[in-house]
Amino acid sequence: VKVNGRHTRSIWLGDDGDVRIVDQLELPFRFVVATLRTLDDAVDAIARMRVRGAPLIGATAAYGIALAARTDGGDAALEAAAARLIATRPTAVNLHWAVRRVLGALRGTAVAQRADTALRLAAELCDEDVAINERIGEHGVNVLRQLAARNGGRPVQVLTHCNAGWLATVDWGTALAPVYRAARDGIPVHVWVDETRPRLQGALTAWELEQEGIAHTVIADNAGGHLMQRGAVDVVITGTDRVTRRGAVANKIGTYLKALAAHDNGVPFYVAAPSPSIDWSAADGADVPIEERAAREVTHVHGETADGARIDVRIHREGTNVLNPGFDITPARLITALITERGVVAATEDELAARFGRTGHA
Amino acid sequence: VKVNGRHTRSIWLGDDGDVRIVDQLELPFRFVVATLRTLDDAVDAIARMRVRGAPLIGATAAYGIALAARTDGGDAALEAAAARLIATRPTAVNLHWAVRRVLGALRGTAVAQRADTALRLAAELCDEDVAINERIGEHGVNVLRQLAARNGGRPVQVLTHCNAGWLATVDWGTALAPVYRAARDGIPVHVWVDETRPRLQGALTAWELEQEGIAHTVIADNAGGHLMQRGAVDVVITGTDRVTRRGAVANKIGTYLKALAAHDNGVPFYVAAPSPSIDWSAADGADVPIEERAAREVTHVHGETADGARIDVRIHREGTNVLNPGFDITPARLITALITERGVVAATEDELAARFGRTGHA
Repeated sequence: VKVNGRHTRSIWLGDDGDVRIVDQLELPFRFVVATLRTLDDAVDAIARMRVRGAPLIGATAAYGIALAARTDGGDAALEAAAARLIATRPTAVNLHWAVRRVLGALRGTAVAQRADTALRLAAELCDEDVAINERIGEHGVNVLRQLAARNGGRPVQVLTHCNAGWLATVDWGTALAPVYRAARDGIPVHVWVDETRPRLQGALTAWELEQEGIAHTVIADNAGGHLMQRGAVDVVITGTDRVTRRGAVANKIGTYLKALAAHDNGVPFYVAAPSPSIDWSAADGADVPIEERAAREVTHVHGETADGARIDVRIHREGTNVLNPGFDITPARLITALITERGVVAATEDELAARFGRTGHA
Repeated sequence: VKVNGRHTRSIWLGDDGDVRIVDQLELPFRFVVATLRTLDDAVDAIARMRVRGAPLIGATAAYGIALAARTDGGDAALEAAAARLIATRPTAVNLHWAVRRVLGALRGTAVAQRADTALRLAAELCDEDVAINERIGEHGVNVLRQLAARNGGRPVQVLTHCNAGWLATVDWGTALAPVYRAARDGIPVHVWVDETRPRLQGALTAWELEQEGIAHTVIADNAGGHLMQRGAVDVVITGTDRVTRRGAVANKIGTYLKALAAHDNGVPFYVAAPSPSIDWSAADGADVPIEERAAREVTHVHGETADGARIDVRIHREGTNVLNPGFDITPARLITALITERGVVAATEDELAARFGRTGHA
């Protein structure tokens, strides 16, 4: 998609052989490209959320293996690098999948070639992500087209939680891919953007949509249920960090509340789910580890002062006790369907297995 | 309840005849008492949320009539004052009730005596609020005592949304009255405090609970459903801005989402509802006006810098489109019961009428 009118991905290989990312800690205030030169850089970028979003942290981790291989391409060094990368974020399964895929492909290859091979593998994985998301857009846009037809010209009202746009992937996004496709196809769309406390990824979503010229309105996370009661939401689309084989979905904390509200108001609730997010080894939500993040994400807010300085302000008193789970589980019964690269699929074990044959990853 | 160990109300008449409030815009950072001398002061305090919470804005408005009567106690002047006060916050019905009650009592009295009479009426209304909330605490503590018995010594896990503590009333609070009562009765309680975006009234709740020495943990509004799924919540108790005669409840935006999650997880969901919050003229939620508040509450966050300065920081780009509804409607079917000053009452028209005989106010 576009930034200031120019086509941009969220991660790419620079001409100098180093990895480039869009530094998401600078958004929505400034668009800054940062460079990752080492494994440490990659680990830090994922852990501090300079990059985030399940598909993008997978891609970043794949590049992280390549950066590690520059220093030491031996099996032990790469296994250690893999362990460090995987430990950064426990919930998104794409991270695990991407690292294992690159390591698997390197096994038995000459150590001296591994850095180059891994860079190529990471680039392939990125291109695949883009292709997957483009297909999610194509399948998902049919959902929006049908709603538009029913709406008689009024914009389709989409509610989304967190950021599952191109910044969460390599390009296109997952939940937002159908929205971007719809805009290109001339289907009128308006997006309700959950601000998504505590990390306020809604600001990323709003920034993306603004860059693409798509109508949107930011709301507090508390507001979505009320909007659905008032008939102001036609469809909810979110991304996912992990889909269990029975169709439960781990996603950003608060997704479950929106799924409940959608169900209570007869609003369809879709999850855009690329197959690398499917975890065949997890039966249900209880099998998914839920990341607990730092209290500071709740007690402090990062923003811009009237002078344009960027600072953290404290919103709770020092010593306030906080719990900050990063994700929750939406049970399959609340999900209308999963929008995958192979079509719109019911969130059931049978349908997932029929469409993907348990081939995603173990 | 106590502030720094000293018994304090949220509003009172000073020895100098002016009205004193706890300035809630200064909390949780500083405890500041402010003075209201004029009708303008009272209108401003309610509109800017120096005072907030349905019962307390009712009390403040009652004092506002008294302050207006000091300048001009004539019928026309008082009606104009009433209109200004009522227009500040449309959703909480207590405001309307309190103003009409004071005006009704002044009708036919000598104009010269009205300022004094109104001050007395406002003080009476405050004392009534305290007595009502104390009784809500007595009835509500039975709910907590039963849960404690079931818990075998583990603390009762209460989740609350917004601030319905003593700061939202004259004293005791509504939703927190049972919690304060439980603490005094030796029933172990821990409170999950929703931060309550956009205005972060959870910081007020956390501050209150800290002053009273009650265990609590602040969470993002998104987290409550996850906690209920994990079995970490025994009961939800909220306050209300308006109860319709059929038992639907208007309360702080996001309450409905927690009610859905409670229902989905078999967690009892109680609303602490003093009778001045019952609107017999409203049948259902559709009859309750929902206040829309300024976009700035969403785009900016107020907090403290590392240097101890208090500032607003912008979290979204200039020009970001925002919708900021202040309240939502929780349907009666999701409410286990209302905790009123006359006991724990089913959220139905028959039960409400049986207990209160439609005598609250028209």
